[in-house]
Amino acid sequence: MPISEITTKLLAAKKEKGITFEDLEKAVGLDETWVASVIYRQASASIEEATKIVTTLGLPESMAEELTIPPLKGSLEPQIPTDPLIYRFYEIMQVYGMPIKAVVHEKFGDGIMSAIDFSVEVDKIPDPKGDRVQITMCGKFLPYKKW
Amino acid sequence: MPISEITTKLLAAKKEKGITFEDLEKAVGLDETWVASVIYRQASASIEEATKIVTTLGLPESMAEELTIPPLKGSLEPQIPTDPLIYRFYEIMQVYGMPIKAVVHEKFGDGIMSAIDFSVEVDKIPDPKGDRVQITMCGKFLPYKKW
Amino acid sequence: MPISEITTKLLAAKKEKGITFEDLEKAVGLDETWVASVIYRQASASIEEATKIVTTLGLPESMAEELTIPPLKGSLEPQIPTDPLIYRFYEIMQVYGMPIKAVVHEKFGDGIMSAIDFSVEVDKIPDPKGDRVQITMCGKFLPYKKW
Amino acid sequence: MPISEITTKLLAAKKEKGITFEDLEKAVGLDETWVASVIYRQASASIEEATKIVTTLGLPESMAEELTIPPLKGSLEPQIPTDPLIYRFYEIMQVYGMPIKAVVHEKFGDGIMSAIDFSVEVDKIPDPKGDRVQITMCGKFLPYKKW
Amino acid sequence: MPISEITTKLLAAKKEKGITFEDLEKAVGLDETWVASVIYRQASASIEEATKIVTTLGLPESMAEELTIPPLKGSLEPQIPTDPLIYRFYEIMQVYGMPIKAVVHEKFGDGIMSAIDFSVEVDKIPDPKGDRVQITMCGKFLPYKKW
Amino acid sequence: MPISEITTKLLAAKKEKGITFEDLEKAVGLDETWVASVIYRQASASIEEATKIVTTLGLPESMAEELTIPPLKGSLEPQIPTDPLIYRFYEIMQVYGMPIKAVVHEKFGDGIMSAIDFSVEVDKIPDPKGDRVQITMCGKFLPYKKW
Amino acid sequence: MPISEITTKLLAAKKEKGITFEDLEKAVGLDETWVASVIYRQASASIEEATKIVTTLGLPESMAEELTIPPLKGSLEPQIPTDPLIYRFYEIMQVYGMPIKAVVHEKFGDGIMSAIDFSVEVDKIPDPKGDRVQITMCGKFLPYKKW
Amino acid sequence: MPISEITTKLLAAKKEKGITFEDLEKAVGLDETWVASVIYRQASASIEEATKIVTTLGLPESMAEELTIPPLKGSLEPQIPTDPLIYRFYEIMQVYGMPIKAVVHEKFGDGIMSAIDFSVEVDKIPDPKGDRVQITMCGKFLPYKKW
Amino acid sequence: MPISEITTKLLAAKKEKGITFEDLEKAVGLDETWVASVIYRQASASIEEATKIVTTLGLPESMAEELTIPPLKGSLEPQIPTDPLIYRFYEIMQVYGMPIKAVVHEKFGDGIMSAIDFSVEVDKIPDPKGDRVQITMCGKFLPYKKW
Amino acid sequence: MPISEITTKLLAAKKEKGITFEDLEKAVGLDETWVASVIYRQASASIEEATKIVTTLGLPESMAEELTIPPLKGSLEPQIPTDPLIYRFYEIMQVYGMPIKAVVHEKFGDGIMSAIDFSVEVDKIPDPKGDRVQITMCGKFLPYKKW
Repeated sequence: MPISEITTKLLAAKKEKGITFEDLEKAVGLDETWVASVIYRQASASIEEATKIVTTLGLPESMAEELTIPPLKGSLEPQIPTDPLIYRFYEIMQVYGMPIKAVVHEKFGDGIMSAIDFSVEVDKIPDPKGDRVQITMCGKFLPYKKW
Repeated sequence: MPISEITTKLLAAKKEKGITFEDLEKAVGLDETWVASVIYRQASASIEEATKIVTTLGLPESMAEELTIPPLKGSLEPQIPTDPLIYRFYEIMQVYGMPIKAVVHEKFGDGIMSAIDFSVEVDKIPDPKGDRVQITMCGKFLPYKKW
Repeated sequence: MPISEITTKLLAAKKEKGITFEDLEKAVGLDETWVASVIYRQASASIEEATKIVTTLGLPESMAEELTIPPLKGSLEPQIPTDPLIYRFYEIMQVYGMPIKAVVHEKFGDGIMSAIDFSVEVDKIPDPKGDRVQITMCGKFLPYKKW
Repeated sequence: MPISEITTKLLAAKKEKGITFEDLEKAVGLDETWVASVIYRQASASIEEATKIVTTLGLPESMAEELTIPPLKGSLEPQIPTDPLIYRFYEIMQVYGMPIKAVVHEKFGDGIMSAIDFSVEVDKIPDPKGDRVQITMCGKFLPYKKW
Repeated sequence: MPISEITTKLLAAKKEKGITFEDLEKAVGLDETWVASVIYRQASASIEEATKIVTTLGLPESMAEELTIPPLKGSLEPQIPTDPLIYRFYEIMQVYGMPIKAVVHEKFGDGIMSAIDFSVEVDKIPDPKGDRVQITMCGKFLPYKKW
Repeated sequence: MPISEITTKLLAAKKEKGITFEDLEKAVGLDETWVASVIYRQASASIEEATKIVTTLGLPESMAEELTIPPLKGSLEPQIPTDPLIYRFYEIMQVYGMPIKAVVHEKFGDGIMSAIDFSVEVDKIPDPKGDRVQITMCGKFLPYKKW
Repeated sequence: MPISEITTKLLAAKKEKGITFEDLEKAVGLDETWVASVIYRQASASIEEATKIVTTLGLPESMAEELTIPPLKGSLEPQIPTDPLIYRFYEIMQVYGMPIKAVVHEKFGDGIMSAIDFSVEVDKIPDPKGDRVQITMCGKFLPYKKW
Repeated sequence: MPISEITTKLLAAKKEKGITFEDLEKAVGLDETWVASVIYRQASASIEEATKIVTTLGLPESMAEELTIPPLKGSLEPQIPTDPLIYRFYEIMQVYGMPIKAVVHEKFGDGIMSAIDFSVEVDKIPDPKGDRVQITMCGKFLPYKKW
Repeated sequence: MPISEITTKLLAAKKEKGITFEDLEKAVGLDETWVASVIYRQASASIEEATKIVTTLGLPESMAEELTIPPLKGSLEPQIPTDPLIYRFYEIMQVYGMPIKAVVHEKFGDGIMSAIDFSVEVDKIPDPKGDRVQITMCGKFLPYKKW
Repeated sequence: MPISEITTKLLAAKKEKGITFEDLEKAVGLDETWVASVIYRQASASIEEATKIVTTLGLPESMAEELTIPPLKGSLEPQIPTDPLIYRFYEIMQVYGMPIKAVVHEKFGDGIMSAIDFSVEVDKIPDPKGDRVQITMCGKFLPYKKW
C-alpha cells in the first residue's frame, strides 16, 4: 500500500510530538479510528476538522486542505492482505461471512449493512486471561429497493 | 461456496419448521451466530451441542456426529466475494484496515486480534432514520512472541 | 455462472408460453429488469409478487416461496466477464470510472451512489442511424458518516 | 491508477481557480463527464476543444496538444476496483448483468450496447429522503454481424 | 471451456456423416467460421439458418430453436488460454497490440475496430516452404463519441 | 505497459517531424506495422534497418544499435488488457477461438499458426456505412512433430 | 486437470496388463514420451498409430479413432502447477529463463525454439551418487519474420 | 523482471567488448548458461569465479563480491511469462507435463528431478531444414523419503 | 480440495473403528503424519506398507494397490488456502520466509532445504499456559550445482 | 519484495563487519532467526533490543527507534513465491497441509497452531550423506472459542 506523502508527514509529526490517536479524538471531537482514517487518506474531513488535526500535530494550516478531498479509497496491496492483523478480518469474512449473512437476513430481510453510513470503534477490554480487542461496527441496514 | 449436504438438510428442516436462529440460541444456550456457523460447517460442536441442534430441528440424532468433525473452513468463491452483504466486510478491511491497525498497535503494541479465541454477535439497533446492524467482534489480543 | 434450477424452469416456461419481460412487468406491476433479477435469483420478492410471477408463467404456486429467500448474489464467472454485452459495463467502469467519481464528488461531496437503494431500467431509443440502448441507473447518494 | 502528469497539472489548476466541471461544460460546449474523461486522459479531444479546456483553466495553449493523442485507456488498479464508489458499478454488473442481458436481448436481439458510440451523464435528483445520483448511459445497439 | 450439450451433438453428427465446415458453408450460404461459431454457441442464427444447419447434419428440426438464443459468450478456461493454437492469438495481442493500436489511431483517429460488426475468415495459402494460415479480420471502425 | 526510453524518444521525434508510419514504411521498405513493432521494442531490426528508421526520424545513428537487440517481448499490463482497442482482440479470441481452432484443424490437421513466422497488416477499407479496419494475419502452419 | 475418459481407460488397461511406455514405444515405433502424450490426449495420432496403441493394450480397435482428433491441449490446473515434479519445470523457467533466452539469442539471433516442431525425451542416467533424470528437448529455431 | 543494477553493468561491458557467453565459458571454465545465470543474478559464484567473470569483462575486481551473495531467485513478471521464447517452456509444461510425469514415475518411482542439483545446456544442432535448438536438462532423481 | 474416493473410504473406516493415526503409526512402523499423507494421496506407499494400512483399518487387501501409485500432488483450492490452520503456514512463509532464507544461506551457502528428502513431525508439547503444537521439518540441504 | 531502507543499511553494515546472525543472537540474547526478522522488518523489538542490534552492527543508536514500530508484515512478491528456498515451504503446505491438519485435530481438537505466540528455529544437522536443515516451529494451540 503506497502511503501518500501527507500521511507520512502527519504520522512523523504525531510520533515526534508523542501525540496518540486518543489525544486527537479529544482535540477534534470525533472518534480516534475515524481520525486515523483521515490521516491514512481513507476518509475526508471538513476544513474545520482538518485544521484541528494539522494544528494539533503542530503542522501548518495550509496542509489542512488536502485532507478535505475525497480520496481514492482502498487499494491494500496485495488484494488478499498478508499483514496478519489485517488478514484476520479477511479470515473472519471467509469463516463467518455466510453465518452472519444468514442471521442478518433473518433479522432484517434482504439487504445489507451499509459500509458508508457506518462507524467502527476499537476498544480494549481488560481480561485477566489476556486483554481483548473489541471491534464494534455499526451500519445502517439498507433494504434492497424494488422498482 | 459449495454448501455441504448436511447444511442443506439442516436449513431445509429449519425452514420447514419455521425455527429461527434465535430459537436455536435458546435451545442450545449458545449465540445464534455461532449456531449458524455450526450449521454452515464453519465451526464444530460437542456431541451434546450437536444433538441439541439436530433434535430441535426435529432431525434424527444420528446426524449430530458429523457436526463434531473439525471442518475445512473458509473457501468463499470467488476469493473476493461478490455477494454485496459479505463484500462490505471486505470493503471495510480495504478502507479501514490500516487505521484500525494503527489504533490497535497504539493501544496494545505489536500483535493481532485473534480470530480463533474470538466471538462475533449481530444485533439490531432500532433507529427512526432506519434500523442499524451492529456487529460486535471480540478477540483476545495476541502479542508477538520473541524467542 | 451456474444458473440455479428454478431459474432454468422459469425461463423454460417463459419461452414456451412466449411471455416477455414486459408482459411480466404488467402482470406484477414492477419493472421488467427487476422481475428479470428475481428470475435470475439476484433479487428476492415478497410472497405475493413471487406468486404473481409463477402463476403468470403458468407454474404451480408452490414454486413461489423459493423466490422469497435472499439469494447469494453475484458470482459471474470468470470475475472479469467475457460475455461481450456484460463486459462493456466493466469497460465503462475502467474508462469512465474516475471521471464519474470526480463529477459525483463535485456535485455531492464524499460518498457513493447506493447499489442497494437503487434501480436500473433498460429502454430502447429509436434512432434512424441505429437504435440505441439506454440504461438509467438511479441510486440514493450515501454520504460518508463521521463518528 | 497512475495519474498522468498532465492530469495532475490540470486538476491542480482547476482546484486553484475554483473552476467546476460544470463551468468547463459551459466553456467547451460538451458534457462535464466527457470533459472530465479528457482531463483524466481516457478520451481525446480535438485541438480546438483541448485549447478551450486548457485556456479556461488559465494554462498555456501549448499544453493542449497532448490532450489530442488517443490514450492507453482503462487500467484501474487493482483490476477489481477497491474504491467504494467505483466498485458499486462492478457490483451492479455482478448482480444485474444477467438480467440486463436478458432484457436487452429480448428488446433488440443478439448484440451489445456500444461503449464507444456511447455517452454517460451524471445528474443530481433532489429527493426529500436523500438526494439521488442518476447515471444515464446511452449507447448504440450493435447487432452481431453474420458473414 | 464447458462444451454445451447441443454442441456435442452437432459435432458428433458432423463427424459421423463426414460433413466439413465447408460443406455447411455451401448449404447455409454463410462463411464456415461463422457456422462453426453457431455450432460452438458463440453466435446465434435465425430460425431458417439454424434449420439448415441441423437438417444438413441429418438432425431433427426441433433442435434448431436452441441455436437462435443469444448465448452467454466467451468463457475460455483458463482465462489465459493454454491451448497452443488459441494462445498464439493472445501472444499476438501481447506482442503486436501496441503497434497495431498506433497504426489504427494514425489511420483512423481515436476509436476501435468493432468485434461485433465484425467478420473473420480462415484461409489456406499454399506455399512450397509450408502452407500458411491466413486469418482476415474485418470490423467497422467505431470512433469515440463526444457528448 | 512501461514504454522504454528509446520508444519515447522515437515517438517524440516522429510526432515533432509529422512523420507517419506509412512514411517510415516507404523509407525502410518494410510494412508499417512491423516498423511500429520495432519502435515499440517488440521486434528487432538489422543494423541497416535500424539506421534507416532513426535517420528518417532525424535522430543520431548511434541510437540505431539498441533497436537490434532481441527485446523482452509482451508484458501488456494488466494481463487482460483494459484498453478497448486491444481488448477487442482478446474478446475475439474468447468468442471465436474455438470455432477458428475447429476450422484450422479441419483444413490443416493438428498444429498451429505460427506467431513467429508471421506477419500482420492493418488496412483501411472505405465503406459508405462507415470505414472498416481490416487486420490480415498470415502465419506458417506448423504441424505437430511426432518422434 | 480433468483426465478424459479415454485416458482413464487406456491407463487402466496398461496397468492391468503390466505394459510399460517402453513396450508401447517398441510396438508403435515412436518415442515413449510421445505415446504418453497421445494417451493423455495432448497429441493426436494417425489412425494406424492409434490402432497400434489400443490393440497393444488389448482394447477394441473402435477406440482408436478418438485418439486422432486434435485435442484442446494444456489446462493443467491450477495454472501454476502444484505437483512437485511438474512444478520444477516452472521453477527452471523462473530461474533459468532469462539466461537461456540470452544464450539462445546470442547463438541464433531473435526468434524462439518451436514447441510444435519439437520433441522431448526422458532418459535415466545411472550415477553412483544417485541416478539422474535427463530431459532432452529439441525444437526447430524459428527466426522472427519481417514483412 | 526488474534487471538488477549489476546485471545491467555486466551486460553493457559484455556488449561493448564484444565478448560472447562462449568466451566467458572458456575464461571461467564453467558452462555458458551457468555463467549467464550468474550475470542475471539467478546463481551465485565463488569469489574466484566471480573475479574471473568481472575481469574478463574488463571491470574492477571490487564488483566480484556482489556475485557471491545468494540472490532472491525467480520473479519473472508477469508470473505466466509473455515473452514468446520463455513462454514456450511454460507451454511445454502445460502440454507435456503429465506425460513426462508418467514416464519419470515408471522409470524411477515416486520422486522428482531436482532443479537444484541440476544443469541445463543450450546447443545449436545444424539442420538443412532449419537449425534446431537443443536444451538438455539433467537433474538428480530425488525419491520421496518415508519416515 | 477434491478428496479422492479412496481417501474418503479410508477415513470412514478409520472413524468407524476408532483407530487413531498413532495406532496406524504403530501398526505400520512409520510416522503418523506420513501415514496421513498416504491416506490423503499425497505420498505413495510400497505394497507391503499399503497392505498394512488397509488391513489395520479392516478393509480388503485389494484396496492397497491404489496407494502405491505416485499421485498428482498438491492442489489445495483456492491456491492461497482459507482454512485457518493451513493458512498459518502460508503466513509463516510470508512473515518469516526472508529471515529464514537469510539464516539458511549464512549457515549453508546457496541452496535449499529439500521438500522431497524431507520429513515432518507433529508433536504436542504440554504447557501450563496452554499446550503447544510443535512442527519439526527436516530436509536435506541441497547446494546449487555449478556446471 | 521491496526491502525497506533500514534493512538495506543493517545488512550492509552486517556484511561489512563480517558479523553473523549467530553473533547477533549472542549479543542480543534472542534467537538468530528472530533477530533476522527484526532486521527484515517483520518483527518489532523493544528499544533496548533494537539498540543492541544497531550498536553491535556499529551503527548510530538513533537508528534503533525505527525497529520498534510494528511493521506492515508479509507481502512477498509475487504472492506465490518463486524463490526456490521459500517456495519449498509453500509446497510443503500444498502437499502436507491436509495430513498435518488431520493429525493436529486428532491430537488437539478443533483449533489452530498460533503463528503469533510462535517461534521458529533453524538448525544444521550434520549428516554424512549430506547435512540437513531442521526447522522447528512451535506455536501455542488455540482452540476455537464458542460463545
